[in-house]
Amino acid sequence: VLTEEVGVLHQSEVGDLLEALSPEQRLALVELMGSAFDFTALTEVDEAIRLDIVDSLPNAQIAQAVQELDSDDAVYILEDLDQEDQDEILAQLPFTERIRLRRSLDYPEESAGRRMQTEFVAVPPFWTVGQTIDYMREDSNLPDSFSQIFVIDPSFRLLGAIDLDRILRTQRAVKVEEIMHETRHAIPATMDQEEAAHEFEQYDLLSAAVVDENERLVGVLTIDDVVDVIQEEAEEDLMRLGGVGDEELSDTVLATSRSRIPWLLINLVMAFLAASVIGLFDATIQEIVALAILMPIVAGMGGNAGSQTMTVTVRALATRDLDIYNAGRIIRREIGVGLLNGLILASLIGLVAGFWFSSPDLGGIIAVAMVVNLLVAALAGIMVPLLLDKAGADPAVSSAVFVTTITDVVGFFTFLGLATWWFGLI
Amino acid sequence: VLTEEVGVLHQSEVGDLLEALSPEQRLALVELMGSAFDFTALTEVDEAIRLDIVDSLPNAQIAQAVQELDSDDAVYILEDLDQEDQDEILAQLPFTERIRLRRSLDYPEESAGRRMQTEFVAVPPFWTVGQTIDYMREDSNLPDSFSQIFVIDPSFRLLGAIDLDRILRTQRAVKVEEIMHETRHAIPATMDQEEAAHEFEQYDLLSAAVVDENERLVGVLTIDDVVDVIQEEAEEDLMRLGGVGDEELSDTVLATSRSRIPWLLINLVMAFLAASVIGLFDATIQEIVALAILMPIVAGMGGNAGSQTMTVTVRALATRDLDIYNAGRIIRREIGVGLLNGLILASLIGLVAGFWFSSPDLGGIIAVAMVVNLLVAALAGIMVPLLLDKAGADPAVSSAVFVTTITDVVGFFTFLGLATWWFGLI
Ligand SMILES: [Mg+2]
Ligand SMILES: [Mg+2]
Ligand SMILES: [Mg+2]
Ligand SMILES: [Mg+2]
Ligand SMILES: [Mg+2]
Ligand SMILES: [Mg+2]
Ligand SMILES: [Mg+2]
Ligand SMILES: [Mg+2]
Ligand SMILES: [Mg+2]
Ligand SMILES: [Mg+2]
Ligand SMILES: [Mg+2]
Ligand SMILES: [Mg+2]
Ligand SMILES: [Mg+2]
Repeated sequence: VLTEEVGVLHQSEVGDLLEALSPEQRLALVELMGSAFDFTALTEVDEAIRLDIVDSLPNAQIAQAVQELDSDDAVYILEDLDQEDQDEILAQLPFTERIRLRRSLDYPEESAGRRMQTEFVAVPPFWTVGQTIDYMREDSNLPDSFSQIFVIDPSFRLLGAIDLDRILRTQRAVKVEEIMHETRHAIPATMDQEEAAHEFEQYDLLSAAVVDENERLVGVLTIDDVVDVIQEEAEEDLMRLGGVGDEELSDTVLATSRSRIPWLLINLVMAFLAASVIGLFDATIQEIVALAILMPIVAGMGGNAGSQTMTVTVRALATRDLDIYNAGRIIRREIGVGLLNGLILASLIGLVAGFWFSSPDLGGIIAVAMVVNLLVAALAGIMVPLLLDKAGADPAVSSAVFVTTITDVVGFFTFLGLATWWFGLI
Repeated sequence: VLTEEVGVLHQSEVGDLLEALSPEQRLALVELMGSAFDFTALTEVDEAIRLDIVDSLPNAQIAQAVQELDSDDAVYILEDLDQEDQDEILAQLPFTERIRLRRSLDYPEESAGRRMQTEFVAVPPFWTVGQTIDYMREDSNLPDSFSQIFVIDPSFRLLGAIDLDRILRTQRAVKVEEIMHETRHAIPATMDQEEAAHEFEQYDLLSAAVVDENERLVGVLTIDDVVDVIQEEAEEDLMRLGGVGDEELSDTVLATSRSRIPWLLINLVMAFLAASVIGLFDATIQEIVALAILMPIVAGMGGNAGSQTMTVTVRALATRDLDIYNAGRIIRREIGVGLLNGLILASLIGLVAGFWFSSPDLGGIIAVAMVVNLLVAALAGIMVPLLLDKAGADPAVSSAVFVTTITDVVGFFTFLGLATWWFGLI
């Protein structure tokens, strides 16, 4: 009964169900369902859960199950296993199946070759639409679903592609080469998945041919998997900006702690650096305690403004909206915004601080420090991610720590330094 | 020549080109191209640029151009215009066109009804596959592209859908009702676009029927537009967490400043609140200046840890991975992580601070304050977004300011308060 009920669920719903269960319940469910369990559901769960389930099943059973899957889903499950298990499972597969999966697995991680499906429909250019339709009606080896067919020459070189709606509205006598469109968007198998996803977005593709270094058709990348890539990449940027790594919701306390501690340690070092800047002015602070009360405002507001600019910059870099053609304009804009917002905030803070401590001088000093720090924040917010990107690093990973360290150090130094000088405490 | 060269570009490339040009050049290009300019390109540019171009063109020309577009693209361009222009343009359209666009525009903003295309292929259930194919070969009024056809009854009620590959592999004599799948995933026109996008992700859809309150087919939502929705929603969350609103890269200094200032002002108020907490302990700080040097570390590390938890929570809420079924487990996990990371960081900070100021007492005090603040940070990082979400607010918008305010206030209060009490300075 359970098997039947789970059987009517969509694989992604089975995935959600597995994620909701405890580790023991998960294994029990998979074992109970036996061969009725569709391994596609494993592509819809967190990596840790997938590994946990796959590791506890005998390799023979995995080899059996993997043959029922689309090649891309099989690769998705196999790629995270250790080499030994992978080899053992592949060895138990039929020759053609093994060759196909091996080829996908040989492409680099996160490449189009890893995400492509090796099942596709390809016909020669001289076939007519009628022949093509008859072939699809009779062949039982077609992929489970497809939205495009490809036209290839005898050596598998890609000549073009035809969307299914095009075939359906064309008379039977027309040759496919007359209605195919040359695939301007064929994707090299070694292309990074993020790059490939950009092609899909830019050209509104449903699927795209994946070709090897000789322009031979080796697979097809489909939009449903590209949507997963887009989600993953967006999540990655968001998490990295928030100082979080590759963790998943199913991770344990220990795993989560281990993944978050490095970021906290880096920030700790930077916090001590900023603290040592304050330490330079301990005599001044002892004289005027108001400085200690106000200094976090200067540093913190710089951090907030810097984060705004940095967020916009990191996102624009990720979507390719920011490039060398408009970087100059955006940098100038950010400086303008930093100056303007700096002046607005400085007048407010200056007034409040001046009245609070009945010292117009203090109000003036904090106002000047604010303008300086917001300008620096704007510059850091845009230049740090730009330079990291140019150096080939991922700007989402480390921009935040640089930007806040810069705004902390500059904020404390300007404010305390100005006060020391103005009140003649050197 | 220019018109020809731009003519071979994809609409999204024309969009990129427009974005790269100055405002005057943009208008010049659009005017130069005249009727050869495909308005679809306007759906690929920033909102401000689109409005700028559309506002400067005569309404009659827009009415003309809009008729050539898919209805969803027409709506995308029209929805941002003011009511008056909208009405004037709609009045110049043929009756059926006007009714269709009006209906889409009557649905709420960011709903499936706004994003759907009203051009689709629908056939009665008793037609055969052969009849359907013949119809598609002869009818010249088909949408430009489609990946699914719908089966409807005489009153336009949706009975099912058939993917094109299914039609192509079925014999001509088979009735469409035999191969259609009942559309479990029909989308109500009033559904929020983000919700609709989740359906597409969950069930790997290429397109989905959109139905009105009487289950009648009114349009089709396609994956290429859903991909744009996914990108928009991911961008929205990232920007909001970074304290940035709806701004676009093409915005001016003034517009950008105006969009960022509110967030900075809210943070400013909170910064003064935190400063006033420090103010409570001015006598203690005057006695022990080391406290002023170390206090930003306690507050800042709490902010970093809180941001980590908050980022994970906001993302998990957005992807629906976090719900009432696992909230308890995640809260317990975050508390565990906060405690563990708090203990690790506390020992480090305690040691360094103790040696730096040659005061084991000070080391102990900062260590205790760190553990408390990291625990509070974990709790705030998960509870603030959860409660905001439960209250119907967008957790991405305001979580950050709450979380950092809480960690600042608690950090300063615990550290300075403990020190005041321990060193007997009350
Ligand atoms: Mg899921
Ligand atoms: Mg993987
Ligand atoms: Mg990547
Ligand atoms: Mg697109
Ligand atoms: Mg797939
Ligand atoms: Mg998939
Ligand atoms: Mg990335
Ligand atoms: Mg673009
Ligand atoms: Mg929304
Ligand atoms: Mg999916
Ligand atoms: Mg569309
Ligand atoms: Mg579109
Ligand atoms: Mg949202």
